[in-house]
Amino acid sequence: MQNFELTILGCSSATPTSSRNPTAQLLNIAERFFLIDCGEATQIQLRKYKIKFQKINHIFISHLHGDHYFGLMGLLSSMHLLGRTNELDLYCPPELQEIIELQLKHSQTYLKYKIIYHPHRYIDNDLIFEDKKVEVRTVLLNHRIPCCGFLFKEKPLLSNISKDTIEDYQIPVEQIVAIKNGADFTTKEGKLIPNAQLVTRFEPRSYAYCSDTCYDERILKTIQGVNLLYHEATFMNDMLDRAKETYHSTTIQAATIAQKAQVRQLMIGHYSARYKELEPLLEEAKSVFENTLLAEEGESVNVAF
Amino acid sequence: MQNFELTILGCSSATPTSSRNPTAQLLNIAERFFLIDCGEATQIQLRKYKIKFQKINHIFISHLHGDHYFGLMGLLSSMHLLGRTNELDLYCPPELQEIIELQLKHSQTYLKYKIIYHPHRYIDNDLIFEDKKVEVRTVLLNHRIPCCGFLFKEKPLLSNISKDTIEDYQIPVEQIVAIKNGADFTTKEGKLIPNAQLVTRFEPRSYAYCSDTCYDERILKTIQGVNLLYHEATFMNDMLDRAKETYHSTTIQAATIAQKAQVRQLMIGHYSARYKELEPLLEEAKSVFENTLLAEEGESVNVAF
Repeated sequence: MQNFELTILGCSSATPTSSRNPTAQLLNIAERFFLIDCGEATQIQLRKYKIKFQKINHIFISHLHGDHYFGLMGLLSSMHLLGRTNELDLYCPPELQEIIELQLKHSQTYLKYKIIYHPHRYIDNDLIFEDKKVEVRTVLLNHRIPCCGFLFKEKPLLSNISKDTIEDYQIPVEQIVAIKNGADFTTKEGKLIPNAQLVTRFEPRSYAYCSDTCYDERILKTIQGVNLLYHEATFMNDMLDRAKETYHSTTIQAATIAQKAQVRQLMIGHYSARYKELEPLLEEAKSVFENTLLAEEGESVNVAF
Repeated sequence: MQNFELTILGCSSATPTSSRNPTAQLLNIAERFFLIDCGEATQIQLRKYKIKFQKINHIFISHLHGDHYFGLMGLLSSMHLLGRTNELDLYCPPELQEIIELQLKHSQTYLKYKIIYHPHRYIDNDLIFEDKKVEVRTVLLNHRIPCCGFLFKEKPLLSNISKDTIEDYQIPVEQIVAIKNGADFTTKEGKLIPNAQLVTRFEPRSYAYCSDTCYDERILKTIQGVNLLYHEATFMNDMLDRAKETYHSTTIQAATIAQKAQVRQLMIGHYSARYKELEPLLEEAKSVFENTLLAEEGESVNVAF
């Protein structure tokens, strides 16, 4: 099966700590490498975890708080210095183009590769990327400044026919595509084998990235039933007032969203620097939604069917 | 004696490596904490080496190549988030103000403290900071884009009279200041003790920071005789052509500047990512100027009299 793997490069909120970097994630779907947010020192994290960053062709920036993009200029510069010529697609707040171009101008840097800007339109469920295997849509979040989450989905996969099935029924090669697309098969003896007996179908998998946001049920429709939901949980529930004030969420709120959206698995992250230990946050989230994980630097999760 | 200590936070050139961060240094002179350049992840380095960054009141940025300032926005943001209210003096290329303000605007951040900008005038030996113990001047460098080094000097110190001397000659308290300022002393017995026998004088110490620059003897006059010279040595001498082309220096060039400026000690740094081991660079520099050190992350040097 094709890869669908998420690697956490940073999971802290605004102020990094000595053990946690600001937000960045790498998502590999079928060897497309999507970088999601790019906090300071993301290029150092990519090196640390031995991820070749020239493989990244698509970068998604949720919003312009520094803990989500201050590492971008350094990464773009290093890509240039290491000889990149491939185009880079950047899905981001419209103002980021001005910020990047101003800095390139004053450093007299002329990138050897082209950046293709895809400015956010701040429409929910907006299709912003599509190829034959993957599509990406926006998830409109509710934060102090305009902010977009992202929904990554596999395209429906061709169904799989096992070698054994082909041999058992002696299916000719020229009929395989039709069967994968839903056709039944009639054996030489004239027996009709229904399609469901021939193929294995996989539901397309999906990953929703929701950071930063206050508790807002308007996202439920778009993220409904995803295989993995990342939802920020900056605070524990005793800091509910602080969460509201700063347009962030608590563990209980993240877990409530997961429960109401009927997702398969929840990952929490974007932890406030005040939390040295993360287990209490996990326990609190699990009290509402059992299948919860902690985002932890360097950890990878395979998104399951 | 008062402190005069340099701590290296990063010593790599443009592309960081997994073991070396881009340029940043902390200089402590008499409990004034000067941050010199601020490459990406400087705030993380400050935390790693347990340096309280709210003690930093003066930041010096040499030029607008990213490896010298991409960590600044993150540091300024963290200072804000952690409640800084003290003014911060920023000595920098004039264009940096626009870069900072654009990013603050788009993140809707209103800093709780004031940044006082001191834009470079690109005049050599320009006095840009002075208080009763320290002065800082520019060193005009020769790089691809406008670039200033910095010369940090102690003010002449009050001379020291030891307790033993005071007791031996029975010097009354009220005469001590005059003696420190150069007066002789006449004992009760009428014997004249010349000032030179009473006091120990210390030459003021100095540190010159020269990065990035090609080999340029025009800096010799300003940095003449400093106690410690940091001079970039991006390349070994077999890459002389590459050094010229990129307006950087080689080990031999850095050491030749140290020799011609008759400095006490040389520190080289800003190493190209191609060098995994630094000993060969040190050996090459020492072949011209024996008293040479390597800049190494986390290492501190006491600038000696």
